[in-house]
Amino acid sequence: MAPRWKGKDAKSKKEAEAEALKEPMSKIISQLQSSLVQSNTCGFLSDNCVHLTVQAEQLDLLDKACFGRPVRIVEKDMYWFQLTVEEAFYLCYSLKCLKIKINVGADTGPLNDEELWHYFRSKKETFPYFYKAYSHLRMKNWVVRSGAQYGVDLIVYRHHPARVHSEYGVLVLSHDKDGDLNGRLRVWSDVHCTTRLLGGVAKTLLVLYVNKNGNNDESLLCLTNYTVEERTISRWSPEQCRERSI
Amino acid sequence: MAPRWKGKDAKSKKEAEAEALKEPMSKIISQLQSSLVQSNTCGFLSDNCVHLTVQAEQLDLLDKACFGRPVRIVEKDMYWFQLTVEEAFYLCYSLKCLKIKINVGADTGPLNDEELWHYFRSKKETFPYFYKAYSHLRMKNWVVRSGAQYGVDLIVYRHHPARVHSEYGVLVLSHDKDGDLNGRLRVWSDVHCTTRLLGGVAKTLLVLYVNKNGNNDESLLCLTNYTVEERTISRWSPEQCRERSI
Repeated sequence: MAPRWKGKDAKSKKEAEAEALKEPMSKIISQLQSSLVQSNTCGFLSDNCVHLTVQAEQLDLLDKACFGRPVRIVEKDMYWFQLTVEEAFYLCYSLKCLKIKINVGADTGPLNDEELWHYFRSKKETFPYFYKAYSHLRMKNWVVRSGAQYGVDLIVYRHHPARVHSEYGVLVLSHDKDGDLNGRLRVWSDVHCTTRLLGGVAKTLLVLYVNKNGNNDESLLCLTNYTVEERTISRWSPEQCRERSI
Repeated sequence: MAPRWKGKDAKSKKEAEAEALKEPMSKIISQLQSSLVQSNTCGFLSDNCVHLTVQAEQLDLLDKACFGRPVRIVEKDMYWFQLTVEEAFYLCYSLKCLKIKINVGADTGPLNDEELWHYFRSKKETFPYFYKAYSHLRMKNWVVRSGAQYGVDLIVYRHHPARVHSEYGVLVLSHDKDGDLNGRLRVWSDVHCTTRLLGGVAKTLLVLYVNKNGNNDESLLCLTNYTVEERTISRWSPEQCRERSI
């Protein structure tokens, strides 16, 4: 399926595509990275997310780069912003442009990567392989958002959701330490269900299998040994392959 | 959701409903039962189904009662017909109107219920609780067909599919002897996916949980101890409950 750019007519769709090409996601993310580093931005842990206060410029860049969501205005030109645990860890650990403290008034310095890793793991059992999947897609400049609305783990956009419809619905699978496959696609009816639903909203099912390669220890180090296998699953109609003469 | 009778306009939908009321499914099934008993109909085992040859009258009744599907014409006024294992066992064991031999030319008599049960079990691991679910719905005069097209196990109609759209997509769940829940709805994303897909085609998700009540032996006797718990699962929109004043 080709990307479906947003617009009322062919011309405005072309314009959305041209604008996206002119301002690629990699460039936006670099700008966000520089801005957060310069202002020495520091977030703090909330229960299952990370909060930070940012200025109008960063609010704009976070929105353009599709990280998190604004919560409310704190004071003039200061905005309260909420990141998912994967987004926060990506900005801290992979992009090195965000620091995170244990709470808003903490006198102690920011947590190091290993401490954050353990905190997020403790809050969300699936964090290690969900983070691997998230960062795997982000590093390839895909925009990644929650897929709850479509009954999948993530949805993936070629550029900002205001410019283009998402192309993939993603399920993240892995084996736990007992060898059980977590969650989905264990039976045929689930494969049917997922591909049919996503097909109906013009998305393709992308399965990311995170292979832990035998690393069942709990440290951040094991993340570097994880590998990702990618598969797309589509419906196939027998008519596609029938010879015209039959 | 109200039943959606088929028709081009309101008038023909009303007619479809009136016809269905005039000729209830219980009556059609009684006619099929009498006809098959009178002609001493005998099918034979195929790999994962049962085949039988029937005359035009029974072909018509099988179609009206929504059992199986015609395969081809054998000779003038004789039709080759195919039943699923659940349909065949329902006609044999519950309605006592079909006999089944081991193969088409067998000199031996028909198999008894226990022999059939073991044969179907050996061909389809899920047969015991799928049969329980199938017969549970059929005995309440629902028409039951495969739900593969919608990524569920079964779909359920109030009357013949020519007259009415199906109302429910059914998933059949049970615990196997190790205590594992077979298949579906183990994670939230699957619940989302299934309800969203079925909602999109105006069906409700019906979950039939077959409780084996500790019966893990393999004989037909255990079937009588199985019980069925029924749940429907629907999407809920928060707007439904919001007070108008807010």
